[in-house]
Amino acid sequence: MYNETKSRSALSPVFSRAILETPRSFVREILAVTGAEDIISFAGGLPDPGLFPVAEMADAFHEVLRHEGRRALQYAESEGYLPLREWIARDYEARGLPTQADNILITSGSQQGLDLVSRTLLDPGSGVLIERPSYLGALQAFSLARPSFRETVLGPEGPDIEALRLHAPDARIFYCVPEFQNPSGYRYSDSARRDVAAALCGSGTVLVEDEPYRQIFFGERNVDSPLAALYDGPSVMLGSFSKIVAPGLRVGWLRASGPMLQQLLVAKQATDLHTNGLTQMALYRFLTQDASAFEERLNRLRQSYRRQRDAMASALKARLAERISFEVPEGGMFFWCRLPGIPTAALLPLALGRKVAFVPGLSFFTKDPEQERLRLNFTNARPEEIEDGVGRLAVAIEDWRP
Amino acid sequence: MYNETKSRSALSPVFSRAILETPRSFVREILAVTGAEDIISFAGGLPDPGLFPVAEMADAFHEVLRHEGRRALQYAESEGYLPLREWIARDYEARGLPTQADNILITSGSQQGLDLVSRTLLDPGSGVLIERPSYLGALQAFSLARPSFRETVLGPEGPDIEALRLHAPDARIFYCVPEFQNPSGYRYSDSARRDVAAALCGSGTVLVEDEPYRQIFFGERNVDSPLAALYDGPSVMLGSFSKIVAPGLRVGWLRASGPMLQQLLVAKQATDLHTNGLTQMALYRFLTQDASAFEERLNRLRQSYRRQRDAMASALKARLAERISFEVPEGGMFFWCRLPGIPTAALLPLALGRKVAFVPGLSFFTKDPEQERLRLNFTNARPEEIEDGVGRLAVAIEDWRP
Repeated sequence: MYNETKSRSALSPVFSRAILETPRSFVREILAVTGAEDIISFAGGLPDPGLFPVAEMADAFHEVLRHEGRRALQYAESEGYLPLREWIARDYEARGLPTQADNILITSGSQQGLDLVSRTLLDPGSGVLIERPSYLGALQAFSLARPSFRETVLGPEGPDIEALRLHAPDARIFYCVPEFQNPSGYRYSDSARRDVAAALCGSGTVLVEDEPYRQIFFGERNVDSPLAALYDGPSVMLGSFSKIVAPGLRVGWLRASGPMLQQLLVAKQATDLHTNGLTQMALYRFLTQDASAFEERLNRLRQSYRRQRDAMASALKARLAERISFEVPEGGMFFWCRLPGIPTAALLPLALGRKVAFVPGLSFFTKDPEQERLRLNFTNARPEEIEDGVGRLAVAIEDWRP
Repeated sequence: MYNETKSRSALSPVFSRAILETPRSFVREILAVTGAEDIISFAGGLPDPGLFPVAEMADAFHEVLRHEGRRALQYAESEGYLPLREWIARDYEARGLPTQADNILITSGSQQGLDLVSRTLLDPGSGVLIERPSYLGALQAFSLARPSFRETVLGPEGPDIEALRLHAPDARIFYCVPEFQNPSGYRYSDSARRDVAAALCGSGTVLVEDEPYRQIFFGERNVDSPLAALYDGPSVMLGSFSKIVAPGLRVGWLRASGPMLQQLLVAKQATDLHTNGLTQMALYRFLTQDASAFEERLNRLRQSYRRQRDAMASALKARLAERISFEVPEGGMFFWCRLPGIPTAALLPLALGRKVAFVPGLSFFTKDPEQERLRLNFTNARPEEIEDGVGRLAVAIEDWRP
């Protein structure tokens, strides 16, 4: 009997503690289910593919391959394509953050930026300070380092400052999404930004400021000053082309000071050598061929998502009224709702039965999840589908029995 | 004084032990130097860009964007593009390894395959059994897990079997490149393969079989049976399109059994969500549009690299004669040479002064490096450049004084 057990275990691989402790992506698992044509999905964080610059990217790939094909298909610098890094650096300069191309590292999506931060700055047991709720992909990336998570509750105006003061001294990093956070849609107020910077001051905590939704805002042009500009300690800023151009390209970036960037670069080399060079070159060509066209594209995208946001707000009010509570987001891609008395993970099967999908709130917490929360995406369904989907959700809620 | 130190350290980030212990890529640092036009570089592992299918890939990208642009630019499955995974699975089937698409995970180059293996199978201190010498990129990827390396000396016919038997019981993985290894160019003999499989038998060690150079052979069509087919324990096989199509695309793959693949997939999600979808679709179109054209391309590539290999062998014999020793590789991209009495890391500055670059042997060892070794790449210089470059190397060697 003993021998049988031994030989059986000898034939099974031993998995790392890190991978066994890493949460699965509920979102991606739901996405697998919701590939079905007849399901209206509010589950993913997918941009509207109707807004992708398909023809423009086709031209850009064609031109790059025609003029610089051999270079584009060869191994390339781990740092990324220099003109693209310069373009990104100029954008930070325009926001008042002194930045050179040497401060920019191109990543395979900003998810990889999170992973590189995790590998470069975290040891097992390191303190990682996160917003509550927090972005699921970040929780996954950090979990692989087996850290100790600490939380600061995020409200509509910003995070709990007392919790920041309490935890910052023991935190290697503070991970935050100050602009239209995923899942909450909340945006830090100007005064919250100053308070956060002051609370971190002197702690040595690395501010990890993630800005995937920065350019997706629906109100007046916001004051566009990053938290990192107010903080006197070290920072890593993360950015992505996924929401403003197209996610399938898998191009993001990070901005860091020199010594940190050098360590992040070693992690990048060890991880995947460099990001797809052809795609970086095509993206750069697309971004620079007509700068005003790119700005117009962003405006169209904001208008389109605003219509979808409005459709969801109206439908939620009309169909669910007092049964649901939420803030109408001023940017980003999500409604963060609460269904008092209903554990949303248990509601999900009923919703899928009614052919509508969402992400239960528990995915966005490392502990003590808020069971009554759910996240609804509004950027990947037409307004009439949104109305229909919210109607299906209302029926599922009617179906619910404790 | 104490306060000053404290405040200074408070403003500097604390780096992870893993990143501080990870070796820098000597190769990539030399590559940065050797961007200069007038240097003949034998340093990198770069394929000949003249052999890249530039026009074919331009067509493929154009067709994919024209017919399936929205899908190609959207978020995609972490597993990779299903038709491409099916294509890869069929290739294993043809080699006698039962494989389904579900066994295949597309990676951002096979470097990422190494990284995913590292994260999924290694804890700090885990035994990692490697060939001596071993591939630098693998040493980097595994180092991030802070393992304990054990070695088996690799000879022209295969690894030291006694060392394998000794170390396998304590090794989570055995990492090997049985076909035309980097840096040695060695290929396991048929009998060595059987002996290796027998030595690992019952140990539970995961065989990590990396095959980037499998299709780059210069002799008779080799028996194409992987080591994994002989081993009764768990295995991960790694493959790459970098050497047979183009490295700038960053598309590789891994093959693993179901339970292991599920864990590797979690690591993939946490690392970069998925590999560039547009590129996977374009690559699939290129591979399948004309299967015989792809085979012909491989033949041309082998013929071309064989001429370059021959040019380097002739030049080394003519210009360095007794000063150098080497085996002529029957495949792959490298000569693994020895310069008796000369520490090659000290020779490198003299060589760069003579406008020729190589990689010193010490890069390929985790301990006790063979100081007199050097690796010469022959696939990224024309035959006349190879002759010229070896001449420059001979002059640098003449310059050498202990």
